[in-house]
Amino acid sequence: MSCSFGSKFKITVFGQSHSEATGVVIEGVPAGLRLDTDTVEAFLRRRAPGQGAHTTARKEADMPRILSGTVDGVTCGAPLCAIIANTNAHSGDYDALKNRPRPGHADFTAVAKHGASADLRGGGNFSGRMTAPLCFAGAVAKQLLAAQGITIGAHIARLAKIDDTAFDPVAVDAATLNAAAEKAFPVLDDGAGEAMLAAIADAKAAGDSVGGVIECAAVGVPAGWGEPIFDGVENMISHLVFGIPAVKGIEFGSGFVGADLYGSENNDPFTVRDGRIVTASNHHGGALGGITSGMPLVFRAAIKPTPSIAKPQTTVNLQTMREETIAVGGRHDPCIVPRAVPCMEAAMAIALMNLR
Amino acid sequence: MSCSFGSKFKITVFGQSHSEATGVVIEGVPAGLRLDTDTVEAFLRRRAPGQGAHTTARKEADMPRILSGTVDGVTCGAPLCAIIANTNAHSGDYDALKNRPRPGHADFTAVAKHGASADLRGGGNFSGRMTAPLCFAGAVAKQLLAAQGITIGAHIARLAKIDDTAFDPVAVDAATLNAAAEKAFPVLDDGAGEAMLAAIADAKAAGDSVGGVIECAAVGVPAGWGEPIFDGVENMISHLVFGIPAVKGIEFGSGFVGADLYGSENNDPFTVRDGRIVTASNHHGGALGGITSGMPLVFRAAIKPTPSIAKPQTTVNLQTMREETIAVGGRHDPCIVPRAVPCMEAAMAIALMNLR
Amino acid sequence: MSCSFGSKFKITVFGQSHSEATGVVIEGVPAGLRLDTDTVEAFLRRRAPGQGAHTTARKEADMPRILSGTVDGVTCGAPLCAIIANTNAHSGDYDALKNRPRPGHADFTAVAKHGASADLRGGGNFSGRMTAPLCFAGAVAKQLLAAQGITIGAHIARLAKIDDTAFDPVAVDAATLNAAAEKAFPVLDDGAGEAMLAAIADAKAAGDSVGGVIECAAVGVPAGWGEPIFDGVENMISHLVFGIPAVKGIEFGSGFVGADLYGSENNDPFTVRDGRIVTASNHHGGALGGITSGMPLVFRAAIKPTPSIAKPQTTVNLQTMREETIAVGGRHDPCIVPRAVPCMEAAMAIALMNLR
Amino acid sequence: MSCSFGSKFKITVFGQSHSEATGVVIEGVPAGLRLDTDTVEAFLRRRAPGQGAHTTARKEADMPRILSGTVDGVTCGAPLCAIIANTNAHSGDYDALKNRPRPGHADFTAVAKHGASADLRGGGNFSGRMTAPLCFAGAVAKQLLAAQGITIGAHIARLAKIDDTAFDPVAVDAATLNAAAEKAFPVLDDGAGEAMLAAIADAKAAGDSVGGVIECAAVGVPAGWGEPIFDGVENMISHLVFGIPAVKGIEFGSGFVGADLYGSENNDPFTVRDGRIVTASNHHGGALGGITSGMPLVFRAAIKPTPSIAKPQTTVNLQTMREETIAVGGRHDPCIVPRAVPCMEAAMAIALMNLR
Repeated sequence: MSCSFGSKFKITVFGQSHSEATGVVIEGVPAGLRLDTDTVEAFLRRRAPGQGAHTTARKEADMPRILSGTVDGVTCGAPLCAIIANTNAHSGDYDALKNRPRPGHADFTAVAKHGASADLRGGGNFSGRMTAPLCFAGAVAKQLLAAQGITIGAHIARLAKIDDTAFDPVAVDAATLNAAAEKAFPVLDDGAGEAMLAAIADAKAAGDSVGGVIECAAVGVPAGWGEPIFDGVENMISHLVFGIPAVKGIEFGSGFVGADLYGSENNDPFTVRDGRIVTASNHHGGALGGITSGMPLVFRAAIKPTPSIAKPQTTVNLQTMREETIAVGGRHDPCIVPRAVPCMEAAMAIALMNLR
Repeated sequence: MSCSFGSKFKITVFGQSHSEATGVVIEGVPAGLRLDTDTVEAFLRRRAPGQGAHTTARKEADMPRILSGTVDGVTCGAPLCAIIANTNAHSGDYDALKNRPRPGHADFTAVAKHGASADLRGGGNFSGRMTAPLCFAGAVAKQLLAAQGITIGAHIARLAKIDDTAFDPVAVDAATLNAAAEKAFPVLDDGAGEAMLAAIADAKAAGDSVGGVIECAAVGVPAGWGEPIFDGVENMISHLVFGIPAVKGIEFGSGFVGADLYGSENNDPFTVRDGRIVTASNHHGGALGGITSGMPLVFRAAIKPTPSIAKPQTTVNLQTMREETIAVGGRHDPCIVPRAVPCMEAAMAIALMNLR
Repeated sequence: MSCSFGSKFKITVFGQSHSEATGVVIEGVPAGLRLDTDTVEAFLRRRAPGQGAHTTARKEADMPRILSGTVDGVTCGAPLCAIIANTNAHSGDYDALKNRPRPGHADFTAVAKHGASADLRGGGNFSGRMTAPLCFAGAVAKQLLAAQGITIGAHIARLAKIDDTAFDPVAVDAATLNAAAEKAFPVLDDGAGEAMLAAIADAKAAGDSVGGVIECAAVGVPAGWGEPIFDGVENMISHLVFGIPAVKGIEFGSGFVGADLYGSENNDPFTVRDGRIVTASNHHGGALGGITSGMPLVFRAAIKPTPSIAKPQTTVNLQTMREETIAVGGRHDPCIVPRAVPCMEAAMAIALMNLR
Repeated sequence: MSCSFGSKFKITVFGQSHSEATGVVIEGVPAGLRLDTDTVEAFLRRRAPGQGAHTTARKEADMPRILSGTVDGVTCGAPLCAIIANTNAHSGDYDALKNRPRPGHADFTAVAKHGASADLRGGGNFSGRMTAPLCFAGAVAKQLLAAQGITIGAHIARLAKIDDTAFDPVAVDAATLNAAAEKAFPVLDDGAGEAMLAAIADAKAAGDSVGGVIECAAVGVPAGWGEPIFDGVENMISHLVFGIPAVKGIEFGSGFVGADLYGSENNDPFTVRDGRIVTASNHHGGALGGITSGMPLVFRAAIKPTPSIAKPQTTVNLQTMREETIAVGGRHDPCIVPRAVPCMEAAMAIALMNLR
């Protein structure tokens, strides 16, 4: 229910934007894994706020503290619990929000569900901050998968209608994915990246925000993972990915473009490469019938533009039932797509740990 | 695991294309519901094969037999089990398939997973036939939801690059949805429908197939349903929808188009209509933070072109590891999109029963 | 929820005493298992009604029909569904029951839960008949476990205050367990068995019924199975065993007797036998901290006397709210303990398949 | 898997005896509950170590810190996470244990399961300390149930063969249960309590330990809760209760004694009291067919004697495979039965929250 997912590698995420901490309990981590703390922290830093010129200043922020599941840094088979303190919460404008739901946010639906006790401070349980513990779990999953030769990476495929077109779903390999992860702005084509950054700056200057599309891939996944009918690759990945705030669409392989193709175009012929059966193209995105084919596993997720914008918007005051104009202040990203990139990798990794 | 889904209205689907029967067990149906058999059968008929001119001839096929959960047609609180006999299976070409996986099908991945014992006859457990019991469960869910004033419907939004553009995600109502359901070819604009039918006929003549996009909506859903973070509207619906064969993408509200918009364009302003808080537009597709907003719930699913085509394709013989050319014979739909329409409604209905 | 259990070997049981059929869907059966039909049927016959002098006459009754999950008798990895037809149901006295709940039965609570639509015919979903599909699943589990060298058996440890005392929880082996299973009346000491049979006959003559205690063991289970805290040996076995009607208690190892011992008496010293670490005694019943120790796994379950008795009893008429006297007629066992013996083995086997 | 339980009120317990903290995440707590901190802490104090003369000195120990799920002490609908710091851990004798498993403890099975990385310090994840977060969850559940008029309590029914016989399963009421909870030594008959305390002191002086039986009841539970076949009263309660270390048996109502009775003795006649249908006796323990009857819900759990004893015991050195004699030192309770009493109440309360 609600905040947990999976059975083989089960995560239970807790916290709100302004609670004392957020965290995650992971069940199913095998005993004997020495957690690679540096890699975990580097991964979390990719989604942390305050990137860019100020990265160092916030270095210690958002780092996990492990409460259980290890002895001297090695997992012991007990549930792994890590928490991330909320040290930087400003709850001042709480009451104003309660009566004036922000368009595009969960304020209105949270009150519809939980009533007056809903926690709207900073988005509460719906906040993007909940992806911090998700990314911790993802980092653990990535380490476990890496030991099996599986690499996961992602890039910004599109932002403000600018495409990062260099991705090849057949040839993509670990080196390509790792290279994207090391960039401050995760694109394959840095020229496209610069144009995207300029578009973000423009939106910010206009008091507005932009969305985008993230493309995420896993290479090295063996054929035969996944459980039809309901625990297949697409079911499990989409279930998790829609747990990341602002995701409004997902497609695998050729996805919506494939729906426009003829069968003879969209089907991927089988062939032999290095003594192994592969497909010559990868419109299926690495999954047939919900089961991995051994080809790169590829999905794209649509991220809506950040709903928090400085431009004036119309809402309804819940007390007076009258329309009012609000401008959402505070420290908001004009585009959360870059920070959502590691979240997609985390979701892919956690899904794969449950598909084995 | 695998073939079951949900907790409040839990379905367990079983069967293969050529097993004695397919079926579903539903847990969570309240006692006291008189099953509306006519409506159930009419709904199942919408996904049954042999539509068009021959509908009457196949009228009795694919109808469910209830094994448990009712007394004299009224549910008693025990699990509802219905089975649908597989009366029309031709298993002749079984062995040929085993060694020559069809491109775009699950033959290859099924063997990767289950080995030589995989059931490839007619697609086995991966077959579109598994949507017959899914639709039975969906019909029960629809009846339960209807009693709460909720109507679910769907139309073909796009097929062979032809759009059925008449859909309005704000104004859509039960009458519109029911009208689409009653059509032999479920579109809103019959002109678009005729063009689509022509494109299907052309593809068939060419030994090819086409895919498309289905748009599905629920109206009358109260605000406040769904459980963040992982049991929200999008998580649950996408989890189920990807259990329907050939689905490769899903989007809610403005989806991938919304990822191209500015926040000021994509955010839906709140307003008051008939004394109730609503949004003036519906880019959010009826869900904010995974929780229903009370606006029409809208998703679109991308359906890939039927992989079974008469045109020659390249595969690899698993025994010889050599490429071979195959042409998939048999009675295949050149387009399964029309038959997938009620499946989307079923998935939406089952998801909603689990979101309450 | 309700009628399903487990994750690695998940069963979903459906049916009522007088529905068209009962059945079970099993998820998690590996592909490639040739079902040993003779053994399955022999196992089911041990719990079937009409035992004793009339066994042959009822030989064909209660045998399962497999609807899905196999191809030519070999499992294919898809969910295994088997149904058992209800051919012998007499529903005549349905209405009388509805208003006059039988003491010791679930009639009253079923109406409290499901209202007037509750199916009380023959006990409905609460009937001992539901153990037929449970035993089918158990037979499959037993076959899978046998392939790993694990044998499960049970005997009547106590009935009408008569003990079958020959059981040794350290030395018990497959031969002992199999020998008990082959007897028409499953005890180790046939003298005790004759006394028990005489007590049953006496109870029947008096229009009364008797209960008893069943002891069930598994040998060959490796050390290290089970998941603390909540998915350990005792959690999982007890969860399943209490799904068998009339069970009101369960204990592992020394159980309630152990609660009277000193720690120095109840602790089992470790020692070495055949190069393997074992315990010299087995008060722990094969599980420490919920995890198997490699010693025989032993539980005892308390079975209440059959509530259906010919003797007059007091109930309350739900319509008039007045006390009435009823005598429960029909074809009832004066003691269901013998038929519950294979049910315990089934529960043990299903639990073990989920503990691996 | 492993450390979580339930669906409507789902708990996920984490921690080890010597990890930084233990804790629990609770999903399904409704928004708007003001946590009664005093009552929660008083409940936790009943299971805390260092009772008796020294209670005040340890007053602050083992108290929970809430990380998420509340705003200003009121639940907000997000998962409730509470942690309890492990401040008093002495890990000195860790290595000695690893090779010399203590009889009656989970050391041996933990190594069988998790290998050399198992955390054996203080019992690791198997420790009685894990009942501290369980009791926190139980306290929250008790508060929610109390608002519905349900009271849960327990007493030591038997210890060192001394019975606390005053319990009446028909007449038991909230006052009786609350009175037992307020006592330092929770029995109904203080004379029996004194004899039990003397027996504990004797065992301690002898370097030995004793076990016992706890009887737990819930009054005010409406008829109709529970889900047959596998989510009934007994299934759910037993599943949870066996998560409490040292429990080796459980029985409901007349339990093992009932197995010795005739049906005419064990059946509970229905009658009318205060215009409500009740049973004249309560051999069924408040559950028929797994569904609550409205009568007091009663179970008894067998607690084995504390395995940690000063008396010398035989173990096997895992390195040398030779027998060795050990005496378990440290601060061990000669009887954990009194501290297990609130744990039983917690298990009952959590089970009931999932049975609604």
